[in-house]
Amino acid sequence: AIVTELTLAIDQTRPGPGEIPLDAPPAHDDREPPADPRAPLNASATPLLHGLHIAITAGPTREAIDPVRYLSNHSSGRMGFALAEAAVALGARVTLISGPVTLETPAGVERIDVVSALEMLAAAEQTAPHCDWFIGCAAVADYRLAQISEHKLKKQSDHGAMTLHLIENPDIIAAVAARPTPPWTIGFAAETRELAQYAGDKLRRKGLDMIAANDVTAPGLGFGAEENALTLYHHGEGAELVSHVLPTCHKRALAEALLRYAHDRYRAHQPR
Amino acid sequence: AIVTELTLAIDQTRPGPGEIPLDAPPAHDDREPPADPRAPLNASATPLLHGLHIAITAGPTREAIDPVRYLSNHSSGRMGFALAEAAVALGARVTLISGPVTLETPAGVERIDVVSALEMLAAAEQTAPHCDWFIGCAAVADYRLAQISEHKLKKQSDHGAMTLHLIENPDIIAAVAARPTPPWTIGFAAETRELAQYAGDKLRRKGLDMIAANDVTAPGLGFGAEENALTLYHHGEGAELVSHVLPTCHKRALAEALLRYAHDRYRAHQPR
Repeated sequence: AIVTELTLAIDQTRPGPGEIPLDAPPAHDDREPPADPRAPLNASATPLLHGLHIAITAGPTREAIDPVRYLSNHSSGRMGFALAEAAVALGARVTLISGPVTLETPAGVERIDVVSALEMLAAAEQTAPHCDWFIGCAAVADYRLAQISEHKLKKQSDHGAMTLHLIENPDIIAAVAARPTPPWTIGFAAETRELAQYAGDKLRRKGLDMIAANDVTAPGLGFGAEENALTLYHHGEGAELVSHVLPTCHKRALAEALLRYAHDRYRAHQPR
Repeated sequence: AIVTELTLAIDQTRPGPGEIPLDAPPAHDDREPPADPRAPLNASATPLLHGLHIAITAGPTREAIDPVRYLSNHSSGRMGFALAEAAVALGARVTLISGPVTLETPAGVERIDVVSALEMLAAAEQTAPHCDWFIGCAAVADYRLAQISEHKLKKQSDHGAMTLHLIENPDIIAAVAARPTPPWTIGFAAETRELAQYAGDKLRRKGLDMIAANDVTAPGLGFGAEENALTLYHHGEGAELVSHVLPTCHKRALAEALLRYAHDRYRAHQPR
């Protein structure tokens, strides 16, 4: 137990290469913070996320039923790819763990392709120990088949009916957040109703630092769309739930707004 | 009953605009048939499928589970799109009924986009009465959800398990072949074993004129691949099953070889 606590203590006090000085005041809005008077003259030339390694999961996962059929969802991967592109532009080193999508890899991004939730978990566990932030933007399938058929399933003469038995997939972002020395974690919640309630529940239950929620039933937004709107939730100084609305805009601009706000929260979260 | 028989009789004797004279000998191989000595001098300039209207289904279908999740399969739509492109090049008028794919519509092709099997069936029933051939190349989902959830399904606390209850989708190519005056029908069979047995069964059971079967477990072929190999099955002069192998090549070349062989069979099948 002492070793574990020691490890935690070391982790919590280590200053990341891209962090501002530990005694700087935390910023609580998403405007650029005022220049630190003690910073060197060229500080404004240092990109906001310089020195941070950010892992991002994106896209859907596919869960095989048999060699030709699968379960999946409507995630296009656009939001995760936009985050990867924006994070590189803001100076971060980015590892993008992507499910099956038809998007080009943004320049400067290291990409790991996976298909199933179990493959994505393996890639996440390999990446998490080396990164400062972990953003779980993938729409990971909640369930996979209890048994994958080796051969293509034939129609059963069971009165035209068939039953698929599913088992729960691991929760990838929760697994990352539960590591002994976790990176700073941002989850996503695609909901069709009661956004704040479900997002707040996920934030607490999964032990995340921040969660970005969107209403996937809003017309023209979310899955497959170019535009999106997000509400960010995190805990305030007490245990209260703080929400911050990023209004509807192109996913690339939204990605940058999210990363800038997240950077403020990340700095506030670092021990002083 | 008399009206139906009359309609059938009219249909079976009507010469399609692109057919060769009814008393020409049927060709039994896939080389170009020798020029008809009675044909006008410019006959060689008439494309093989000129005057034929061909409907082709392509791609997978997606069966909704809830607003974000679905069942689907690995069909890329490439084979169906290659058939559409080749059929236009051979002079046919083409209607392409496509499930969700990421392919460009070939030039000169009329495209109808659908998502689910029921939508594809509706498009097929609308198109079938007006076309000469119907090629069912789509990988239609055999099953859909018995009930589609209006809201995103939440994880159940059922010991991490979930059960999906599915019901059989209509068999689109069989429904087309069962019409009172059906177009000439070609089905596809993607199999993982016992190609000839399953393909022969489907040919008979669905009442098709020809079926193209491929082994989707062959590495580098079939779903998602650029190349494919097909074995065509049809009934001979007796009731025997005749097979004809189209060896591995690019899907576009394979599509043309299939259409040329199908045209020979179509002419042989027309009443003299």
